[in-house]
Parts: sequence; structure tokens; C-alpha cells
Amino acid sequence: MTQNIYDDEEFFEAYGRLDRSIHGLDGAPEWPVLRHLLPNVRGLRVLDLGCGYGWFCRWARQQGAARVVGIDVSGKMLERARAAPADEGITYTRADLEHVDLPGSSFDLVYSSLAFHYLTNLTDLAARIFSALAPRGRLVFSVEHPIVTASHNPVWPQGAAWPVDHYFDEGPRVTDWLVKGVVKQHRTMSTYLNMLVRSGFAISRVEDWCPTEEQVAARPEWERERCRPLFLIVAADKEAT
Amino acid sequence: MTQNIYDDEEFFEAYGRLDRSIHGLDGAPEWPVLRHLLPNVRGLRVLDLGCGYGWFCRWARQQGAARVVGIDVSGKMLERARAAPADEGITYTRADLEHVDLPGSSFDLVYSSLAFHYLTNLTDLAARIFSALAPRGRLVFSVEHPIVTASHNPVWPQGAAWPVDHYFDEGPRVTDWLVKGVVKQHRTMSTYLNMLVRSGFAISRVEDWCPTEEQVAARPEWERERCRPLFLIVAADKEAT
Repeated sequence: MTQNIYDDEEFFEAYGRLDRSIHGLDGAPEWPVLRHLLPNVRGLRVLDLGCGYGWFCRWARQQGAARVVGIDVSGKMLERARAAPADEGITYTRADLEHVDLPGSSFDLVYSSLAFHYLTNLTDLAARIFSALAPRGRLVFSVEHPIVTASHNPVWPQGAAWPVDHYFDEGPRVTDWLVKGVVKQHRTMSTYLNMLVRSGFAISRVEDWCPTEEQVAARPEWERERCRPLFLIVAADKEAT
Repeated sequence: MTQNIYDDEEFFEAYGRLDRSIHGLDGAPEWPVLRHLLPNVRGLRVLDLGCGYGWFCRWARQQGAARVVGIDVSGKMLERARAAPADEGITYTRADLEHVDLPGSSFDLVYSSLAFHYLTNLTDLAARIFSALAPRGRLVFSVEHPIVTASHNPVWPQGAAWPVDHYFDEGPRVTDWLVKGVVKQHRTMSTYLNMLVRSGFAISRVEDWCPTEEQVAARPEWERERCRPLFLIVAADKEAT
């Protein structure tokens, strides 16, 4: 069972003050890399898993997506998403990604930004995503990088080196991020990638992400984020058979 | 230009005292994982890049490989390989992997154990391996894991945490291993995997490797090696088109 931290009032308030909450996709420094891995969405059927405020759903429609479905477990997030000007091409659904049924061969693009690392059972979802994609469909997702999620004590204790420990001890990590007691799931790189292959996906691109030098120049406090990857971004395809 | 450290007398002597030098494949704790990713080699044409003493070449022949080519840059290693009982099915060639020409569509399996991290230009070699493989051929290789090669100061400074820094600073790392001044190349996970995809490979398996609990029970000094992956092991296929 996934923790629904986004419906925690204190968390929701704090999350709302992040750049990515105020400025949307352009407030997320990893967005240029994600965007680069997306197909041209014009005319595509798009599914956003963990859609939050709906920024990506609206962006996809602005780019010409035929229809967009956004799913999130957080009622508060969806309330905010639905407060945007109505668009009959976007459907928001509240559901737990660990259990949601997805219709078969119904989407050309499945997108998920920083949601999968909250899920305790991702293998089943990968299989459901594969089924939900039409032939030649693509999955693009980001998660916190296994190098970041591994440690039981994830702090920089010395200089600019990031400590990695307990890498093979997959499972929950409780961190204090915005509020105390946020639960994320650590998985190894092997687990993320082999899960995709076993589901039938062809891995098309793997990006270890950290801020660019230009981004650090604008935000010097991000300097140490460049010592190791912060996010893992993957594109995987359902090839025509 | 790759450093040919294996022809350094002091290094060669010290390397000869390692378990994997004395006991061959069974002396290499990662061998069970590598072996698991291999196809049945019976009747296959096999290429071993960085064959060293020839342990894998001989194993492949014992398993029924039709013919085996072993390539290494080290004259000393090949001298030792050739000292084994002659087998007309094995050919050893001395060559720098960065420049060696490989015949097209000539192999069903290309294997490489802990050699690629010495090469400064791996992208060209990946393309040549792809061309050298017959359709449905497989590449299986191991390298030191990017988590291990990243740091400019790769020592455990505290408890059981491994320090990661300079992850995105790809290039040479000079370490003292057996002798002073051994040069290895750090690459990110992205670089290793995207290089394969761009060459035409389908990634079939990615293994972050560390010793098993059973191995650590037998060799307690390996305990801390389990805090992070030591090797990256990959299987990639040239799919029939």
C-alpha cells in the first residue's frame, strides 16, 4: 500500500511552494531531458501516471495530443488540476497506481514524473502499462535515482561525496522531505531496467540526470547535486511485433 | 590510447596471485552471474575481448563452442594462455581493442570480462562488435560499476558508505590497484547503456553485481562490498531484422 503523502495538509502546502508547483514543467529542472525523450504528442493518446496538478496533461493538449488521461492518488492534487480551465480532452481520475485497471492498447504515450518511487509494487504496473500501450507506444518516466535512494542515512557527511550504502536492500526509505516521514521505495538500477525488459519493453534511453552547469550557475546551491545523479529518466518502447 | 598495465612486470606478478588468476572462472565471484547471461555455447562461434590467460576461451570450448577467438593487448597474458594444452579451436590474437578490426557477422557470442573500463574509446568498439555479431548474436560483458569508478577519491571514509562524487566527470581515473598508477575510464550508466542502444543492440539484462551473502559468509572481508554494486554486467542482443 502506497503512502498518500500528497493528501497530508502540511505536505501539500509545502509542496505547493516548490518551483515545480508554481511554475509547472518549466520549474522542473529535469523537464528538458524528459521532453527530449517524448515523441511528438500531436494526435497521440496520452496517459499521465501521478499527474499531480495536471501540468503535463495540459501541456500535452497544448501540443496537440488527441486526448489525455491523468491519474493520481491525491484528491488534493486532482482538485487543483480540475480548477484549471476545463478541457474536454483531459480526464482526471483518482486511483492508486498499484491497483488501477488500465484499458488495453489505448495509449500511445505513458508518462510518469517522480511517482514510481512511491509504489511498493511496480512490477505489476509495468505489465499493465505495457498492455495499455498500443504497438509502437512509448513509456517515459522519471524516478529518484537508485544512487540517491539507497542509503539509510542519505546526507552529505563530508565534502562533496554522496554516501551509498544498503544499495541491495530494496524496500522502503523514510526521509524527511517537506514533512517528516515520507516513504519512498528504493530499487536498484537492475530492478528498474530488468522489470521493463521482462514486461516486453525495449529500453530506448537511460538518463542519469543532474542539473546542468548552466542550471547550477543560476542556482549555486545546486552545485553539490552534480556529484551524483539525482533522477533516473528512462524511455522504453513497445515495439511492433 | 589504452594503458597496457598487464604487461607491467610488477602488475603481472601481483595479478597472477589473485584468486581469479589461480582458479580461473571459479575464482571470480561474479562468474555465476555472467554465466547465467550466456547462451548455451555449444556450436557457437565465440569472441572473447580481453581474454587474459584464456580461461573463458577454454571453458567455452569445453562447453562445445565451435571455435573461439581470444584477443588481448597483453603479450604476457597471451603467452600464458598459449602455454595451455593446444586446442585448434582456439585462436589467440594480440591487439588493442580500441583499434582491432573484427570480421563482419562472424560470431554468435561476444564476451568481455572487466576489460572495457580500460578503453578510452568504447563507442567505436561497440559498433564493431555489433557488426561482428551474426543476427541473434549476444554480447555479454562486465565492467567496474559507474558507482565505483566515479569518485576522485574512492575510499570508504566512514562506516559502510561508499562515496560517490564527480559522477558526471567521465574520463580517466588513476588508482593504485596491485601497483600504483593503474588508469581506468569512468563512464556513467547512461553512457554504457545508450552506447549499446545507439549501436543497434537490444538491452536484455542489466545486473548491478556485488557478492552474495553466501560469498560474504565465506569471505567476511567482502562484507562492505555489499553496500554498493562493484561490477556492472550487461547482456545485449543483436536482434534478427
